Amino acid sequence: MDTVANDATSVARRRARASADALYAGDKASQGLGIELLDVAPGSVRVGMTVRADMVNGHGICHGGILFMLADSAFAFACNSYGEPMVAAGASIEFLASVNKGARITATATETSRSARGGIYDVVVARESGEPLAHFRGRCARLRLPLQPSPQEEPK
Amino acid sequence: MDTVANDATSVARRRARASADALYAGDKASQGLGIELLDVAPGSVRVGMTVRADMVNGHGICHGGILFMLADSAFAFACNSYGEPMVAAGASIEFLASVNKGARITATATETSRSARGGIYDVVVARESGEPLAHFRGRCARLRLPLQPSPQEEPK
Amino acid sequence: MDTVANDATSVARRRARASADALYAGDKASQGLGIELLDVAPGSVRVGMTVRADMVNGHGICHGGILFMLADSAFAFACNSYGEPMVAAGASIEFLASVNKGARITATATETSRSARGGIYDVVVARESGEPLAHFRGRCARLRLPLQPSPQEEPK
Amino acid sequence: MDTVANDATSVARRRARASADALYAGDKASQGLGIELLDVAPGSVRVGMTVRADMVNGHGICHGGILFMLADSAFAFACNSYGEPMVAAGASIEFLASVNKGARITATATETSRSARGGIYDVVVARESGEPLAHFRGRCARLRLPLQPSPQEEPK
Repeated sequence: MDTVANDATSVARRRARASADALYAGDKASQGLGIELLDVAPGSVRVGMTVRADMVNGHGICHGGILFMLADSAFAFACNSYGEPMVAAGASIEFLASVNKGARITATATETSRSARGGIYDVVVARESGEPLAHFRGRCARLRLPLQPSPQEEPK
Repeated sequence: MDTVANDATSVARRRARASADALYAGDKASQGLGIELLDVAPGSVRVGMTVRADMVNGHGICHGGILFMLADSAFAFACNSYGEPMVAAGASIEFLASVNKGARITATATETSRSARGGIYDVVVARESGEPLAHFRGRCARLRLPLQPSPQEEPK
Repeated sequence: MDTVANDATSVARRRARASADALYAGDKASQGLGIELLDVAPGSVRVGMTVRADMVNGHGICHGGILFMLADSAFAFACNSYGEPMVAAGASIEFLASVNKGARITATATETSRSARGGIYDVVVARESGEPLAHFRGRCARLRLPLQPSPQEEPK
Repeated sequence: MDTVANDATSVARRRARASADALYAGDKASQGLGIELLDVAPGSVRVGMTVRADMVNGHGICHGGILFMLADSAFAFACNSYGEPMVAAGASIEFLASVNKGARITATATETSRSARGGIYDVVVARESGEPLAHFRGRCARLRLPLQPSPQEEPK
């Protein structure tokens, strides 16, 4: 029994990793930020990056949108970790502390809710020391439903 | 009287523009995305950009974090348009439609609430045709208060 | 033409009013708070109430949940004003100022986005003087989809 | 050492309970809904109530604002559990499932972030069976700062 359960867990983890790798391969935005996939499990993902000089805002600290993008990427990999395509329907973020260039930061996504139609994922963005920088909550929905580009969309 | 009022308006607009230009000059993140300042008035800003090939996610559409960054930049310029430094305390975004690479998109920030301690700004991200892509609501707070980096921060 | 357009507007307004009246008739929660329907138009509703002694929290000011309920009711009447049943999928609220018992307060809902699948409504809660107390943003979805009670639900 | 630690824990728990009891005594809104304090620890509170016939909305199900109020009360007791007065600065809620009258529901608040200036609390509203009905995230701030009634406020 244990073995069967372990196998199921192992299969689920491999599928989560394969989903994340496939998404990541096409995710030019995450690649461009230097985001790395650190841990991938079903519903749970950790990513990391280093704040570069080209990521600061007019106050000289890391642009809040960069923290959002890191969290959003962790969220996207986590909500797509079961092999069913999901897209972000919305998100909120609370900023706790600022961070300068050169810092190493991570985002850890965990699953708060999941159904066939969508889910809620909470993500903590933190320094390597563990100090939290932002709390993010994302809502996802099945790909087909809410975010289909219209047919007259720009050519790819 | 009209002339005095017009002068005051004109001074406020020039200060808003100067604040935005100064912030933009240091905002490497916005510059790197190709974000342009289109309109700047006190509490109200419009920015634009083109979705590049390096901004798509694993589903082949513009990464939601890019729409957030564009909205967040409009928000930052708008809430800093009075000459008092403000930083983002938090934000929420609802995604309505997806957009492909090559599309020209804008973000228009308007002031919903403003006090000495902070404010609320609503931002609409849209295609050039006017079709809305996302609705963003940002909360800001005076710079000193909530987001000071700690002294033991990484060197710049 | 004007007459036809006016008739269409008039029909839409009557339908909005009839929808709100029908919802209100069954809405024991809104009735219990003393919420009154002040203005009803398609996508746009204003409601009012007086803060009673039984609505204060442990700090002696009106419970934030009461401000939420007033806003949520305006939102519900507004998003159901076209005759297609919608339910709240989520909401956020920012509290700007507190209010004591005895005060008369209103909530004004306006439509920010609307499609066949759902919508976004922004609601301002204010004193009679117009001073804003809270800003609320609600998201709704078609009734059937997300909020069906399960069959094994408690008996009514 | 263990004894000292246990004593500190015990003191903190008693203070949390005393803070919640004091707030509850003045909280007419929570009392009126029949909300009961079930568990109180520093930063962590569980409350419960039964959905009454006077709490349904126009769709015949429990008004979403009631779920918000239950969550908001759990949040208020939790963020005030250290003896320093905090007020809600804002909140968001996601509705997952509806619930009928007669159902027993609970809200469990946990602390996600806490500093001298404020905090973030996550609350799960659920049926007695454990099925989640809503996820709530509240932000609080020190009482003096953001929500002081103005002097010309209505008399109490």
